Amino acid sequence: SCNIKKVTIEDIFSGKLQAHDPEATWISGEWQMSFTPGCSAASAVGGSTHTHTQTKLSCFEIGLFFDRERVQLTPNEVQSTALQYAGWGPKGQQLIFIFENNIYYKAQVNSPSIRLVSTGSLGVVFNGLADWLYEEEIFQTHIAHWWSPDGLRLAYATINDTLVPKMEIPMFTNALYPSGQEYRYPKAGEENPDIYLSVVSLNGPLHTVRMRKPEDPRIRKDYYITMVKWATSTKLAVNWLNRAQNNSILTLCEATTGICTKKHEDESDSWLHRQNEPPLFSRDGYRFFFTRAVPQGGRGKFFHISMSTSQPNSSTDTLQSLTSGDWDVTQILAYNEDTKLTIHIINKNVRNISKINANTTGSFNRRCLSCNLSCGYISGSFSPDANYFLLNCKGPGVPHTAVYSTRDGEYESESSQLNTTVNNTQMPKVEYRKISIDDYCLNMQIVMPAGFTETAHYPLLLLVDGTPGGQMVTEQFQVDWTTVLVSSFNTIVMRLDGRGSGFQGTNLLHRVKKKLGELEERDQLEALRIISQLPYIDSSRVGVYGKAYGGYLASRLLRSDENPNMFKFKIKCGTVVSPITDFSLYGMMSYPVFDHTCLSLIYSNKTNGLISQLRDKKLMIIHPTADEKVHFQHTAKFITHLINEKANYTLQIYPDEGHILHSRDSQLHLSQSLVNYFVECFRPPEIPTEDKVEQDNEDDG
Amino acid sequence: SCNIKKVTIEDIFSGKLQAHDPEATWISGEWQMSFTPGCSAASAVGGSTHTHTQTKLSCFEIGLFFDRERVQLTPNEVQSTALQYAGWGPKGQQLIFIFENNIYYKAQVNSPSIRLVSTGSLGVVFNGLADWLYEEEIFQTHIAHWWSPDGLRLAYATINDTLVPKMEIPMFTNALYPSGQEYRYPKAGEENPDIYLSVVSLNGPLHTVRMRKPEDPRIRKDYYITMVKWATSTKLAVNWLNRAQNNSILTLCEATTGICTKKHEDESDSWLHRQNEPPLFSRDGYRFFFTRAVPQGGRGKFFHISMSTSQPNSSTDTLQSLTSGDWDVTQILAYNEDTKLTIHIINKNVRNISKINANTTGSFNRRCLSCNLSCGYISGSFSPDANYFLLNCKGPGVPHTAVYSTRDGEYESESSQLNTTVNNTQMPKVEYRKISIDDYCLNMQIVMPAGFTETAHYPLLLLVDGTPGGQMVTEQFQVDWTTVLVSSFNTIVMRLDGRGSGFQGTNLLHRVKKKLGELEERDQLEALRIISQLPYIDSSRVGVYGKAYGGYLASRLLRSDENPNMFKFKIKCGTVVSPITDFSLYGMMSYPVFDHTCLSLIYSNKTNGLISQLRDKKLMIIHPTADEKVHFQHTAKFITHLINEKANYTLQIYPDEGHILHSRDSQLHLSQSLVNYFVECFRPPEIPTEDKVEQDNEDDG
Repeated sequence: SCNIKKVTIEDIFSGKLQAHDPEATWISGEWQMSFTPGCSAASAVGGSTHTHTQTKLSCFEIGLFFDRERVQLTPNEVQSTALQYAGWGPKGQQLIFIFENNIYYKAQVNSPSIRLVSTGSLGVVFNGLADWLYEEEIFQTHIAHWWSPDGLRLAYATINDTLVPKMEIPMFTNALYPSGQEYRYPKAGEENPDIYLSVVSLNGPLHTVRMRKPEDPRIRKDYYITMVKWATSTKLAVNWLNRAQNNSILTLCEATTGICTKKHEDESDSWLHRQNEPPLFSRDGYRFFFTRAVPQGGRGKFFHISMSTSQPNSSTDTLQSLTSGDWDVTQILAYNEDTKLTIHIINKNVRNISKINANTTGSFNRRCLSCNLSCGYISGSFSPDANYFLLNCKGPGVPHTAVYSTRDGEYESESSQLNTTVNNTQMPKVEYRKISIDDYCLNMQIVMPAGFTETAHYPLLLLVDGTPGGQMVTEQFQVDWTTVLVSSFNTIVMRLDGRGSGFQGTNLLHRVKKKLGELEERDQLEALRIISQLPYIDSSRVGVYGKAYGGYLASRLLRSDENPNMFKFKIKCGTVVSPITDFSLYGMMSYPVFDHTCLSLIYSNKTNGLISQLRDKKLMIIHPTADEKVHFQHTAKFITHLINEKANYTLQIYPDEGHILHSRDSQLHLSQSLVNYFVECFRPPEIPTEDKVEQDNEDDG
Repeated sequence: SCNIKKVTIEDIFSGKLQAHDPEATWISGEWQMSFTPGCSAASAVGGSTHTHTQTKLSCFEIGLFFDRERVQLTPNEVQSTALQYAGWGPKGQQLIFIFENNIYYKAQVNSPSIRLVSTGSLGVVFNGLADWLYEEEIFQTHIAHWWSPDGLRLAYATINDTLVPKMEIPMFTNALYPSGQEYRYPKAGEENPDIYLSVVSLNGPLHTVRMRKPEDPRIRKDYYITMVKWATSTKLAVNWLNRAQNNSILTLCEATTGICTKKHEDESDSWLHRQNEPPLFSRDGYRFFFTRAVPQGGRGKFFHISMSTSQPNSSTDTLQSLTSGDWDVTQILAYNEDTKLTIHIINKNVRNISKINANTTGSFNRRCLSCNLSCGYISGSFSPDANYFLLNCKGPGVPHTAVYSTRDGEYESESSQLNTTVNNTQMPKVEYRKISIDDYCLNMQIVMPAGFTETAHYPLLLLVDGTPGGQMVTEQFQVDWTTVLVSSFNTIVMRLDGRGSGFQGTNLLHRVKKKLGELEERDQLEALRIISQLPYIDSSRVGVYGKAYGGYLASRLLRSDENPNMFKFKIKCGTVVSPITDFSLYGMMSYPVFDHTCLSLIYSNKTNGLISQLRDKKLMIIHPTADEKVHFQHTAKFITHLINEKANYTLQIYPDEGHILHSRDSQLHLSQSLVNYFVECFRPPEIPTEDKVEQDNEDDG
């Protein structure tokens, strides 16, 4: 097996090892039109997809091809700005489009445009689109409008950033005299955007109703709307979250009156998460399913399915828990109206699809649909009648997509080319372990070269993320620069989900409250200590890597092995990408519970501080200069401290690139740099030839 | 001698090896006041001394201590802005100060302030102060006003930057939401500032006269004023230069009428340089001395002293050349009215002070005053009667200052502490060589360790500058990071003044016209080829270093040894600091003759281009992010190309620091980084112990 090909950076970027996504979707049966605007939404700053940081759109005149006729969308009152969005409504040819943060409507392609709202102001007041905060941290999309199923109404958010301070991103290469890009970014403690939700009726004269915030002292002026979904043609489910992120109210709003009725309340001593996931409604809207964290014993709360059913002649609803146990439901996929089965994905070490009878409770009714399919990490979607499911199997083996019957008939729609490539390649071997720290049992993943042998000595690379609620150890099939290190450079790579990670109960998650980084660091060190004792690990050649929050953790880890009696390993080098180095410079939404004591920790001048320890180690910082999420400021501030403390560092920047690198050249360069860096760090001392030794000895003259 | 101390970075920064500057000046005999404003001129962005890029002054209320009385300077009409300048006039207590780019005058400390001009506008219209261009590239000071010797008149420049595009420097660490610093910076081809010169009479009612540009088709609207100096109490010498910098007119302006009379014209097929040096006037103003480039045969023009004498009853002046030869007069120091001797510094390999009888011509009259003093690089100033001179001897030995009589009496005023330190330290040995390239004879300097022996093999570091008109090879005493490399790390350092360098005639200088970098590169390579053939040079360990223009050259050199048959050495690594990578991004004044073909050369994708060659070499780029002279843009653009071409690089930045590093921490970090980088690059392969070898062999498992 040693003769088959090792994985190289070229393999990663050639697409040979990339699973082909068939982009399969269910056709709903409704009549669909193909829509090809002349130019669609924004080309963005630094490769980000954020429409509000866009520099300039590629064209100013937008047409719509329909029956080979070009339809001009640009309204008269709009001058030389670009189309921000255009999309079909659910019925016939109805469509909306957005210019200057105002929404326009056409009932038919050839009917006149009607402006639905006129409060928009570019970069400041957003109608129907998200600002940076809502796109990046809440909705996970720039779309902030929602069609009613019958196409008679449109709900849209109005997000007002007037009071949110402006952040300016310097751009270097775009002009002879470069200019910065401004957008609104609420840093910790600064003003948030205001948000409200309106519904406009499109049938007959325009009529707009604003949805009214539930009257509750816990949801004051300063709140987030984290989820909007139509339950029926006239009712909207809306989730409201307070600024401290420890109280939320799920309401059902009457679109015609704006009155929102509480359906569920949630609270936490620490913070609430997964607040943007929509409930699943029955066709009549009287029943809906949603996930909420429910106490499950010693490990705290886990996410389980609640079913809420309206009683026809009563103002109160009944609420039932459909699932329970020390595991999370990660997504509710479908509800079969006929069989009353709900189908969902659960995370119980591996992720699987289960179905459960919605009329009964108790785990004995749960039946796993994907457990026989050798998938450890899946996503899926269901046919409208919920009798078939489209399964994207994302690991541990080669990703593939197939259609299955919920009654176990199977039809494979996609046979994968990838299998052959993978079989001819020295793919890494993956092992899973559990380690105990205090009363916690933590998941660990160890990735080893195909030709692994216990008698050799391998360098060890620890990949850290640590973002609260995140998950590093999964069975997802992953091929990236670390695969190259393992396959071609005999490195062992490890990941650990320590305290603060997700899908293991709220006790583990919330343990990090107000001391971000401290316990995560200890867990990672303990894992390193255990693994580096293995006879085949060279404990003198250990490296760490982390991005964003992981960059913060990796920086902490670099200073951690200060006591050689305590640890038997040495972290020799580390790379941090877009590191968070000061939480006060970061977005306020992400870490509602960070403590100001975290702020200065990374800059500590104490004898055991990061920086003094860094002097005899290698640190590479990598930061795209137009990073819109973790600003380059973080690295600038970090470096200023490193300079003052006489610490060595090297830096790589990606000029005018964003948090996610946009250009393929940049991505390739980053991967190659990371591989080169760790290969160099892990290189055993050279063995010079006789000649060289002789010559070098002369150099002392 | 091997037991004495080697030079370390700590030595450089401790001041132990820094020559003490006694800051000796001549007391003119006029009554002087000590002046201590509450806060004087600006603390500047990024450590630059440029007042126009200042962020914020340290205080807003300025007082003047006089007879223990605090005098408030801030005028009523000025609101919360800071004092930009304050200084005494030549007579009594008269003083001027500047707020908001407007000049104020007080005849006495306690008399009321009079505003002399009101057109000022911060950052846009400058009265009495220089904008960025005039400070950095022309006057070499931010002061742009000149007192008449009798204190009755003040000449001041008005510099209007309205049409000059704004450059914004991003600042990262100054605030939670950082903001850029704007200033006017004319890049190549962009609008220059307008400038005119006014004289205001302070005796009696204010009367302002504008000096009129000489009527000459060669000096059009777009011109520079490069020098202003009072010849008498009513006459001003003014030098005008056209934008192409190939025509200049020296005029004498009548302060009362504004009429400027041509005294000398100069032109060049290439470009004129040294246009900001003031003439030296006799007391009556009828005679003056100035330097101009004069043809001297095969090597082109050299700078020599011209003496212009007005004829009492004639409108024409007589002009005499006082010196001649293949060497430059670098400065005219004094004119002795009684003996009619002019005294000047000349550069003839080493710099010396000479005196010459102004009534005669011919070199036989020239007599060297400093040739016996073992100084190879000097500056000096003369007592008002020119009978004594204060000599700053800056090398080759330990710098010292002394007062000498022009009649050869000698009085040493300063005995140096430095001598002892230097004698106890292993200072490098310096050798000078000349190499011939084509028909040129070029100066080279080689700096070797104190314990140099011909049987050892030393790595070689080439320091390049190459700025047209510059001079690298001098006998100045220099102690910096390269001294550490030589003294403590057995490195040989070399410098070469190639084609394009100064003080060797205009032929050598102008040869680089419209092909900046090409011949400089060839000369440096040839020098490397010659030196690397020496038996004690290890031609496999060669590095280059350069800053600004030198960074451009060093980048070119890194790709130059593409043909191993052509060169017997290999440039292994290079460091470029604030490199110019695109002349179109650079200030327009500096390289009037750059050719657009130079622009893309550094980014060449040709097979023999820089970047493809960089792949197997090490390149470190260092750039302060607030560099106001060579913008960070240059490095951003360079890196973007390196990324696209898959070339390796490492980067160090100095956040919010300017072209000259301001903080001592930054300076120290930079020096240490440079030393570390080249030590690492020049390190011979390690010789592992037996144990290590064994262990490493197991790693292939």
